[in-house]
Amino acid sequence: MSTTKRIASPESDPRVRAVFDDIRAMRKTDFINNFWHALALDPTLLESTWSEVKRLMATPTHLDPLTKEMVYIAVSVANSCSYCVHSHTAAARARGMTDAQHTELLAVISLAARTNHLATGLQVPVDAVFDADGES
Amino acid sequence: MSTTKRIASPESDPRVRAVFDDIRAMRKTDFINNFWHALALDPTLLESTWSEVKRLMATPTHLDPLTKEMVYIAVSVANSCSYCVHSHTAAARARGMTDAQHTELLAVISLAARTNHLATGLQVPVDAVFDADGES
Amino acid sequence: MSTTKRIASPESDPRVRAVFDDIRAMRKTDFINNFWHALALDPTLLESTWSEVKRLMATPTHLDPLTKEMVYIAVSVANSCSYCVHSHTAAARARGMTDAQHTELLAVISLAARTNHLATGLQVPVDAVFDADGES
Amino acid sequence: MSTTKRIASPESDPRVRAVFDDIRAMRKTDFINNFWHALALDPTLLESTWSEVKRLMATPTHLDPLTKEMVYIAVSVANSCSYCVHSHTAAARARGMTDAQHTELLAVISLAARTNHLATGLQVPVDAVFDADGES
Amino acid sequence: MSTTKRIASPESDPRVRAVFDDIRAMRKTDFINNFWHALALDPTLLESTWSEVKRLMATPTHLDPLTKEMVYIAVSVANSCSYCVHSHTAAARARGMTDAQHTELLAVISLAARTNHLATGLQVPVDAVFDADGES
Amino acid sequence: MSTTKRIASPESDPRVRAVFDDIRAMRKTDFINNFWHALALDPTLLESTWSEVKRLMATPTHLDPLTKEMVYIAVSVANSCSYCVHSHTAAARARGMTDAQHTELLAVISLAARTNHLATGLQVPVDAVFDADGES
Repeated sequence: MSTTKRIASPESDPRVRAVFDDIRAMRKTDFINNFWHALALDPTLLESTWSEVKRLMATPTHLDPLTKEMVYIAVSVANSCSYCVHSHTAAARARGMTDAQHTELLAVISLAARTNHLATGLQVPVDAVFDADGES
Repeated sequence: MSTTKRIASPESDPRVRAVFDDIRAMRKTDFINNFWHALALDPTLLESTWSEVKRLMATPTHLDPLTKEMVYIAVSVANSCSYCVHSHTAAARARGMTDAQHTELLAVISLAARTNHLATGLQVPVDAVFDADGES
Repeated sequence: MSTTKRIASPESDPRVRAVFDDIRAMRKTDFINNFWHALALDPTLLESTWSEVKRLMATPTHLDPLTKEMVYIAVSVANSCSYCVHSHTAAARARGMTDAQHTELLAVISLAARTNHLATGLQVPVDAVFDADGES
Repeated sequence: MSTTKRIASPESDPRVRAVFDDIRAMRKTDFINNFWHALALDPTLLESTWSEVKRLMATPTHLDPLTKEMVYIAVSVANSCSYCVHSHTAAARARGMTDAQHTELLAVISLAARTNHLATGLQVPVDAVFDADGES
Repeated sequence: MSTTKRIASPESDPRVRAVFDDIRAMRKTDFINNFWHALALDPTLLESTWSEVKRLMATPTHLDPLTKEMVYIAVSVANSCSYCVHSHTAAARARGMTDAQHTELLAVISLAARTNHLATGLQVPVDAVFDADGES
Repeated sequence: MSTTKRIASPESDPRVRAVFDDIRAMRKTDFINNFWHALALDPTLLESTWSEVKRLMATPTHLDPLTKEMVYIAVSVANSCSYCVHSHTAAARARGMTDAQHTELLAVISLAARTNHLATGLQVPVDAVFDADGES
């Protein structure tokens, strides 16, 4: 099921073809997953989404690639995006995440959810010492 | 403001005292932040919460401490817990997070939110290749 | 699957029959979708839910019907309600939403999610100028 | 702060006056809290919201009033509605919630959040035995 | 589908065996549902999760067991955890929840969601009278 | 309060200056709100965020500007982003949103939340007729 009709030949559009070629080159595989296939409906949205993903996730920066994939999983779990949890868990494994790191990641995510809900239920005020913008 | 009344002398309860002493020893500071102070209302809840936080966050495991704090921030942002975003950003800084790492973390979190909402809006089916439990 | 048992003949209850007849008349179709069928378990809940939907969504008011369906999709995506994303995307198409409007809607929703998470991560204070209730 | 301008004399509108009088009668107090005051901007929205709250929360039904207030707190915490957490914690106390019940409620809410995030991270399929609509 | 590979014989690990035996004894059934089976991947996470669930949900405390299951359902719905909504609705039925209580629970949950979104959209300030920590 | 330190003179960086000048030109005001000021910490993040906002929100496309701002408010409410609810309500007013449209928008948002939570609690399967990708 899907809320959009699957395009039969998305790569007949050269802008889609260019993005798909870039995805295949970056990932060293011919496989294009359903998310990118669906975005082909709107080449501008496809291009802007892929360019952000490529810039942040596929190139070395201040955070290492595996850390970024684990942060991505964490947000996807908290936002309850089933597709994203699956696709980014696969991506993290491709970047070397072990079973032990995976279950520890889930333990940290679920602990955070626990204390998030406790703090929201308590409605305690933020301690002044946490303010990064306080007067010096 | 708060949904609970602040206890004047929480450490008159020896169970609370023990947890607060442990927090101070682990963090090498006398400061007890509002979250733990409020949990002192229920020593069992205080003990079980702190023991989980200590076991997962304060001891070396399969993930490094800074990665865990950044995952914690990611979940706290997605769950919109203002207190937690403040306290764990401070904790990540205490573990060495630089300004460049912080803004890159926020960039990854917000990119994940963007594609989470896109995938949920598209309702595309999960690709079979992502299933970790598929037949071999 | 479902958390409730499907009623075999919901319209044997005259209150359910009246609501279903009204749904069919408004939508000019004999089809009753699973959501309303399940609510037939509790005629009071069915009546109060349908009367709100009818009053707000099915009659001309200060916002046009297609805008209201797109707002509905936006909330359903952010709340990660798979059923609702499907049913209201179909409703928006029935009210004339084009493919180009649909992908632009998803682009706006996902952009909002991106800046929502950025603002929550930054915890910047609300600018005084945004307060609709400020002193004149 | 608020996104709407506070009305100086909301009760000059007889429909608002009628709802406010009903709120005061039900609660046996002259106090009208900010939520209802703000809704006075739109008497139809005020009436439909209050009539639902009154029907479900203020009259004896299949669930006792305190249970309903605790469920209300649970949803408000998970949806991160600061105003609602405050107002419904006060309402639950008015219905007899003790400090011990309050902290146990928060413990259950935060445990649920923990296992919610675990199950979403694991993406395990729903066991067939949980289906209330299975074949007999 | 799942993000982890299903373990063929989880109970060959004695720590897993002990938890599974405890689950079977508490529930008086041989059935172990997919959630606990998947957690067997990490015996420490399995033990800490089960011990919390057992302590809070399976033993009599300040709140009765059915109330706690209904609060659990409420959080699971708001966090959009499909697995958890199914498993805890089944658990609540096992503790005696009637159809009438179930639909009333859903009515309260959805009413809370409605006023949560209204209050968040209005951004009205919290009334001082709701502060449990105010000066006396 | 904030999780980042406010930069004293952000426009000494020419990339920040260029974005701020563009914001001022588009909005015909000298005012730069706290969100953009905070993003100045990371000029690349500032540029990529602003370019998306400008492309989607500030130029005429398939949806009219006011509809897009109302969709933005809807997502911000559901994600419980206080800052965003304030800033985009102000933006919608600047684009002509009346008080009557505002309260109707909030009524639709809160109705969607209500049925989102009902559908998630019921876990009814998606009707085949809603599938946009069904066989023809």
